[in-house]
Amino acid sequence: MASDDDAGRTAAPDAGLLSPVRAGTAAEAATSDHAYLAAMLDAEAALARAQARLGIVPADAADAIAAAAVPERFDLVDLARRARGSGNPVVPLVADLRALAGPAGEHVHRGATSQDIVDTGAMLVAFRTRRVVVAELDRALEALAGLAARYRDTPMPARTLGRQAMPTTFGAKAANWLLGCLEARGRLTAVILPVQLGGPAGTLDAYGGQAFDLVAAYAEETGLARPVLPWHTRRTPVAELAGALALTAGALGKIGTDVWLLAQSEVAEVAEAAGPGRGGSSSMPHKRNPALSALVRSAALQVPAQAQVVYAALAAPHERPAGEWHAEWQPLRECLRLTGGAAETAAGLVSGLEVSTELMRVDLDDLLDALGGDPGPGAAGALVDRALDAYRRSRA
Amino acid sequence: MASDDDAGRTAAPDAGLLSPVRAGTAAEAATSDHAYLAAMLDAEAALARAQARLGIVPADAADAIAAAAVPERFDLVDLARRARGSGNPVVPLVADLRALAGPAGEHVHRGATSQDIVDTGAMLVAFRTRRVVVAELDRALEALAGLAARYRDTPMPARTLGRQAMPTTFGAKAANWLLGCLEARGRLTAVILPVQLGGPAGTLDAYGGQAFDLVAAYAEETGLARPVLPWHTRRTPVAELAGALALTAGALGKIGTDVWLLAQSEVAEVAEAAGPGRGGSSSMPHKRNPALSALVRSAALQVPAQAQVVYAALAAPHERPAGEWHAEWQPLRECLRLTGGAAETAAGLVSGLEVSTELMRVDLDDLLDALGGDPGPGAAGALVDRALDAYRRSRA
Amino acid sequence: MASDDDAGRTAAPDAGLLSPVRAGTAAEAATSDHAYLAAMLDAEAALARAQARLGIVPADAADAIAAAAVPERFDLVDLARRARGSGNPVVPLVADLRALAGPAGEHVHRGATSQDIVDTGAMLVAFRTRRVVVAELDRALEALAGLAARYRDTPMPARTLGRQAMPTTFGAKAANWLLGCLEARGRLTAVILPVQLGGPAGTLDAYGGQAFDLVAAYAEETGLARPVLPWHTRRTPVAELAGALALTAGALGKIGTDVWLLAQSEVAEVAEAAGPGRGGSSSMPHKRNPALSALVRSAALQVPAQAQVVYAALAAPHERPAGEWHAEWQPLRECLRLTGGAAETAAGLVSGLEVSTELMRVDLDDLLDALGGDPGPGAAGALVDRALDAYRRSRA
Amino acid sequence: MASDDDAGRTAAPDAGLLSPVRAGTAAEAATSDHAYLAAMLDAEAALARAQARLGIVPADAADAIAAAAVPERFDLVDLARRARGSGNPVVPLVADLRALAGPAGEHVHRGATSQDIVDTGAMLVAFRTRRVVVAELDRALEALAGLAARYRDTPMPARTLGRQAMPTTFGAKAANWLLGCLEARGRLTAVILPVQLGGPAGTLDAYGGQAFDLVAAYAEETGLARPVLPWHTRRTPVAELAGALALTAGALGKIGTDVWLLAQSEVAEVAEAAGPGRGGSSSMPHKRNPALSALVRSAALQVPAQAQVVYAALAAPHERPAGEWHAEWQPLRECLRLTGGAAETAAGLVSGLEVSTELMRVDLDDLLDALGGDPGPGAAGALVDRALDAYRRSRA
Repeated sequence: MASDDDAGRTAAPDAGLLSPVRAGTAAEAATSDHAYLAAMLDAEAALARAQARLGIVPADAADAIAAAAVPERFDLVDLARRARGSGNPVVPLVADLRALAGPAGEHVHRGATSQDIVDTGAMLVAFRTRRVVVAELDRALEALAGLAARYRDTPMPARTLGRQAMPTTFGAKAANWLLGCLEARGRLTAVILPVQLGGPAGTLDAYGGQAFDLVAAYAEETGLARPVLPWHTRRTPVAELAGALALTAGALGKIGTDVWLLAQSEVAEVAEAAGPGRGGSSSMPHKRNPALSALVRSAALQVPAQAQVVYAALAAPHERPAGEWHAEWQPLRECLRLTGGAAETAAGLVSGLEVSTELMRVDLDDLLDALGGDPGPGAAGALVDRALDAYRRSRA
Repeated sequence: MASDDDAGRTAAPDAGLLSPVRAGTAAEAATSDHAYLAAMLDAEAALARAQARLGIVPADAADAIAAAAVPERFDLVDLARRARGSGNPVVPLVADLRALAGPAGEHVHRGATSQDIVDTGAMLVAFRTRRVVVAELDRALEALAGLAARYRDTPMPARTLGRQAMPTTFGAKAANWLLGCLEARGRLTAVILPVQLGGPAGTLDAYGGQAFDLVAAYAEETGLARPVLPWHTRRTPVAELAGALALTAGALGKIGTDVWLLAQSEVAEVAEAAGPGRGGSSSMPHKRNPALSALVRSAALQVPAQAQVVYAALAAPHERPAGEWHAEWQPLRECLRLTGGAAETAAGLVSGLEVSTELMRVDLDDLLDALGGDPGPGAAGALVDRALDAYRRSRA
Repeated sequence: MASDDDAGRTAAPDAGLLSPVRAGTAAEAATSDHAYLAAMLDAEAALARAQARLGIVPADAADAIAAAAVPERFDLVDLARRARGSGNPVVPLVADLRALAGPAGEHVHRGATSQDIVDTGAMLVAFRTRRVVVAELDRALEALAGLAARYRDTPMPARTLGRQAMPTTFGAKAANWLLGCLEARGRLTAVILPVQLGGPAGTLDAYGGQAFDLVAAYAEETGLARPVLPWHTRRTPVAELAGALALTAGALGKIGTDVWLLAQSEVAEVAEAAGPGRGGSSSMPHKRNPALSALVRSAALQVPAQAQVVYAALAAPHERPAGEWHAEWQPLRECLRLTGGAAETAAGLVSGLEVSTELMRVDLDDLLDALGGDPGPGAAGALVDRALDAYRRSRA
Repeated sequence: MASDDDAGRTAAPDAGLLSPVRAGTAAEAATSDHAYLAAMLDAEAALARAQARLGIVPADAADAIAAAAVPERFDLVDLARRARGSGNPVVPLVADLRALAGPAGEHVHRGATSQDIVDTGAMLVAFRTRRVVVAELDRALEALAGLAARYRDTPMPARTLGRQAMPTTFGAKAANWLLGCLEARGRLTAVILPVQLGGPAGTLDAYGGQAFDLVAAYAEETGLARPVLPWHTRRTPVAELAGALALTAGALGKIGTDVWLLAQSEVAEVAEAAGPGRGGSSSMPHKRNPALSALVRSAALQVPAQAQVVYAALAAPHERPAGEWHAEWQPLRECLRLTGGAAETAAGLVSGLEVSTELMRVDLDDLLDALGGDPGPGAAGALVDRALDAYRRSRA
C-alpha cells in the first residue's frame, strides 16, 4: 500500500515551517500524523488483545493483528485521502489492517465503531505527548526555582501598566513564574485520559455480558483510564485536556511576555542566551532578539483559540456529531504540540537567561528617586520562600 | 453622590433584552453591576476588619468602614464613568468610600492596590454565583436522574451523523446527559477561589511581618481561599473558573442540542413543556418551539469564546497588565451569567420534558426494518445503572 | 406595563462598571437595551407605514402604531424576562404593542416574523452606532494626521521584538496608525446594513404580489438597505459588520499598544495627557498610568472573540436556528459598543498625547552608538506624505 | 542541504490525517510548507529582479538568484528547525540562498528584512490559494444555480427551531445557499493582497530615492498589489483575508448544516451521492452518512477561531511584534486550507446531491394538515429568480 506520490510536495504539507515554536521538538514528533497512525493501530491491537483475554477472539488472531498493526505498513497520505469518503480515517485503516492481517482480518475491530479507535488513538497521543510536555515543564520548573533562589533578594522595579511602581525582587518575579507553571503542571497531570469503547450506538452492544470486563481489559492494554460510560458525545476528557493545555501555554506565555519586556533595549535587565543562530536578524547584525520569548508567546496566543473549538464542540448532537467531532481533532493536536513546543522552548529560554543585576539596580534607583526613598521590597523574599516550598513539596 | 441621569436611558444599558437565557435568572442578579459593587465594598470592609484583628487599623474604624460600605450609598453609573480615568473602578470607589467613612476614611484600603479589590470582588461574585449555578445544576441533575431511571429500558434509535444507527434507550441518552453535568459540577466546585492581596507591587510591602497573617485573616473575613502568592499576573484562578464554566455550559448545551433535534417535527420523540408564553411564535400559532433548548444552546455557543479571552489574558505583562486584566472582567462575568442562566433554563427544560415513548417506538421500528432484525440495546440498561450509581455516590 | 422591580438591583445588571472602555460613551448609549427596544419599535412602526403606503394597512392604523411604539411605554426588564418563553423579545413586544395600539393593534406586525423585527432592530442599532463610531474615528484620524504632520521628521528608534533596530520617525509611526484607522473606517462604512423582511418561512408569503415593493418601502422607511433576499439564515450582513468592527478595534488597539510601550518609565517618549482623575493609581500617587491605552487595548483583546461567535453562527440550520441566531445578539452588541468605546477613548488619547522629542533623541542616540553611525530614517518622511495624502483624498 | 532525517517520522507531521476536509485537495497542496517555501523563494527572486530593473543589483546576479531559488534545493525540515534561532524561517533561508547563489549571493535580500519575505510569501500563497478556492466556489455556485432553477417550484416545509413552520420551496433554499456563496466570493476576491517591503525599520532605508519605484517593480514582479505603506504592523490585509475566509467557510457551512439535517433518517429529503468509499461506516453497512456535510461543517467550526487569532494580532507592538506576528502564520494557513478544502468538498456535495421531491411532499403534507390548508410558498419562486439574476450578473 505504499504510495508513489511525490513526497516532497504532498507528504509534508506541514512540517513546521510556519510554526517554529514546535519545529523539531519532541512534542512535534509525539503529535505527528505518524504518531496518530501508530496510536490508532495500537488501539486496534490492544482491542484485539483485550478481546483475546476474554475469549472473544482467538489469541493467535490477536497476535496476527498486532503484527500487522505497524505504521510503516500503511500509507498515511493515502489513508488521509480515503478518509474523505467516510469522514474519518478509521474506515480505510480497518480495511487495510484486515487485508494485512490475513485470516485474522475478520477479528479486527470486532464490535467497535470508528470513533472508538479515533478517540482512543487521540488519548494515546495525548498520554504520550503529556509525558513530553511534563518533562519539559519539569526542566523549566527546575530552572525557575534556581532563578527564584539565586535572585531572591535582588531588587528591581515592579511595573504596572508599564510604569515603575514600587520595588520588588527578581526572585519574586521568578517565583510567580514558577508557581504559575507548577499550577499548570498540576492541572495537566490531573486530567483523566480514558479509553473509548462503545460500539456504533455507544451501547457496547456486541459484547453481551462481557462489555465492562472488556472495557477494563482494553484500558489495561492501552494504559489509559477506564471511563464510567462511553464518551462519544460527552467530551469532558477532551475539553479538560484542552483547558489544561491552554492554562499551561498561558503560564509559559507569561514568562515569554515578561522576558520580552525586560529584554527591551531601554530596560535590558535580562537577555536571552546568545549563541550561533540565536536571536539573529536577517538585516541587523547588531541586534540580539528575544526570539525564544517570541516563539513561546506565539504559542500562548494560539492555544486559547484552539481550545475554544474544543469547548464549543461539547454541545454535540446525538450519539455522533456531523462536524463537531471532526472539528476537534486538529485543534486538540495544535493544543498539544504548541504547548509542548512552548514548554521545550521556555525550558531553554529560562535555563539560559542572562540577568543583569546592575541594570536592575539602575532602573530601581530611578524609581527610588521618584519615590523619594526606598520602601524596600516588602515580603518579596518570603514570597520566594513560599513558592520554593510549594515546588519542593510537589517534588516530594 | 446620587446621579440625576435619566436612568431609563443610561442606567440600564444591558438588562438582558438581548440575552434571554439569563434574563431574570438568579445568576443574572448575582452578577449584576450592583453585585460587583457590593462585592468590592465587601472586600474593602473585610480588609478593614482583618486589619483591625491584627491591630493595623482601629476596630471602630473597621466598623465605620463596614457601615459606609453599602452599595446603595454609591452611584454605580458615576463610578463606571469615573473608572475611565484610572482604568478601573476602585480608584473612584475608594475616594467615595473614604468620604462616606468620615474620620475612619484614612484607614480605608490600607496598603492595598486597586487590583486587590477588583480581583477579590470578582472572586466573591464568582463564589456567590457558583452557589447559584450549582443549585440549578443540582435541580437539573435530579431531573436527569429521574429521566434516566424512568426510561432506563425505553428503546429508541441511536443516531450518528443524523442517521439512525442502532438501538439505544432514552435512559442511556439521559444517563449521558447526567454524567456530563455531574462531571462539570465536580470540576466547577473544585475551582479554588482565592482572595487577592498584594499591594502595589504584589509584595505586600505595607504590612511588614504581618503580611501573611493579614492575608489569612482577610481570607477568613471574605470566606475565600488563601493563595500561596498574590496572583495579580498569575491568573490561574480566573482561567480555571472560565474553563470550568465553559465545560458546564457545554454539558448543558449537549442537552439543548439533543432536545432540539429530538423535538423536530419529523422526530417529535420529546417536546418541551407547553404553557402560557412558552414556545410561542409571533407569526405561527400552530407551532410549539423548543425555545428553552435554543436558549441553552445560545449560552453554550457563547461561553467558549468568553473563556478564550480569559485564557489569552494569562500571558500578562509584569506586575499589572495594560489591557489584558481589564479585558478579562466582562468575559468572566459573561461566563458566569450565561452558564448560570443556562443551568436554570436547562433545569426547567429537563424537569418539564415530555417524552413520547410511542414515537420512539415508531422510529425504532423503521430502524429495525432497515437492520432486518432487532439487535437490542446492548448494555444500555447497565450504562444507566452506572451513571445513576455515580450520581448517587456524589450525593452521599 | 411599568414594573415595580427594585431598579437598583435588577434593571441595571450591566451599566458599564466592568467595561470602563465604553462606560458613558456615545456608543454605550447607542447600544443600550433601551436603544434596541427603540429600534425594534421603530421597525414595527416603519413596517406599518410601509404597509400603509401600499394599502396593506389603513393609514391611520400606521399612525396609531407609530404613536404607540414609544419605548418609554414599555417595560424592558419585563420584556426581557417574557422573552424566555418564546426565545426572543418580539413575541411579548408585539403583544404589548398591540395592546397599546388599541383598534390599530390588529395591524401590528402584519405578515412579519419575530426575526424580521429583531434583525431590523439590530441593523438600525448598528446603523446608528456606526455613525457614532465613525465620528469618533474621524476625531482620531484628524488628531493622527496632526501628529504625523507635526512629527514628520522627528527621529526615534524603530523597535522590533522590543529591541531598537534602526531609525524611524515619530511621524512615520503616526502615519501607520493613521492609515490603519483609515482602512478600518473604509471597511466599516462599506458594510451594507439591510432591512429584514421575510415572514415566518422567509418567503414573504403574506404580501402576494406586493412583496418586493413592500421590502423597498420598508427599507426607505427605516433608512436601511434593500436586501436581495431575506437573510434569516444567510448572515452575511452580521458577519461583515462584526469583521469590520474587529478590524477597527484592532487598528485602535495598535495605537494603544504602542502608546503603552512608549510610555513605559524607561522609554517615556510619550505620555497620556494628565488631568484630574486621569491615569491615577489607588496606591501610588507618583504614578501616571497609560490608562486610556489600557482601556483601548482591553477592547481590542475582546472584540475578536465576540466576532468569532458571529462568524461561527453563519452555519445556521434551516430557516431559523435553535441557538446560533440567539447567540449572535449580545456578541454583536459587544463588538459595537467596545469598538465605539475604544474609538472615543482613542480619540481622546491621541488628541492629548504628549510627545517628548528630547527622549526620542536620547534613545535614538543610544541606537546610533550601537550602529556606529546614523543611517537616517530612510523614506520615513515620504511615508508620512503618502499616508496624509491618502487621508486627504478620503476627506475630499 | 538535503537532510537524512527519517522522512516518515519527521517530514510529515501533518499530512492531513486529522483534517480530511482538506486531505488531498488543491488547497492543501497550495498551502503546503513546500508551497510556502516556494513562495518565499519567489519573493527573493522577484526582489532581485525588481532591483535589477532599477540597477540596484546586476542583472546577472538577479538571474543567478532566481536560478538558485528553487525549493527542491532547500531542506524545509532543516529550515523549520533553524528558524527557531531567529524566530522566523527567512534568516536560515537567506543564508542557504546566498550559499547557493555563489558570487551573486551578496545581492540576495538586499535592503530587505525577514518580514518582507515572510509576508510577501504568505501573500503569494494566499493569492494562489484564493484562485483555487474561487474555482471551487465557482463549481459550487454553478451546481447551486442548477438546484435553484430545477427545484424553483418544488414545495417543502420551511423549518424554524427545527419545527415545520410554513411552506417554502427547495429552490428557495438553494437560492439562499447560492447567494451566500456569491456574497462570500465577492468579498474574498475583493481582498487586496499587497507585496511587503519596508526593510528593518519599515522605512525602506536602503533604497534612497528609488524606494517607491522599487516597491512598484517588486509588486509587478510578484503580481501582488502595491501597498500605500509597508504593513509590518498594520495587518489590515491579513485580517481582511482571514475575515473573508471565515465568511466563505460559514457560507459553505450553512449548506453542510442544512444537508446534514435534511439527510436525517426521519427527514431524508436529500442524500449525499452514494459511491464506493462514500458515506460508509466502519460498523454499520446499512448506513449512508452525510460525510461530506460533516467535513464541510468541520471546517466551518474551525475557521472562525483561526480568524480570531489573526484579528487579535492586529494590536501589534511597534515595528515588529514579539509573538503576535508569529502567531498569525499557522492560523492564516488553516483559514486558507480549511476553506479551500470545504469549497472543494462542498462543490462535490452539491453537484451530487440527491433530492427526493416525494419525501418533501410527504413532509409538506404533514405541515399542511397542521395548518389546516395550504398557504402556498409565497414569493419563493421570485426569490429564486432574484438570486439567479444576481448570480448571472456576477458572471457577466
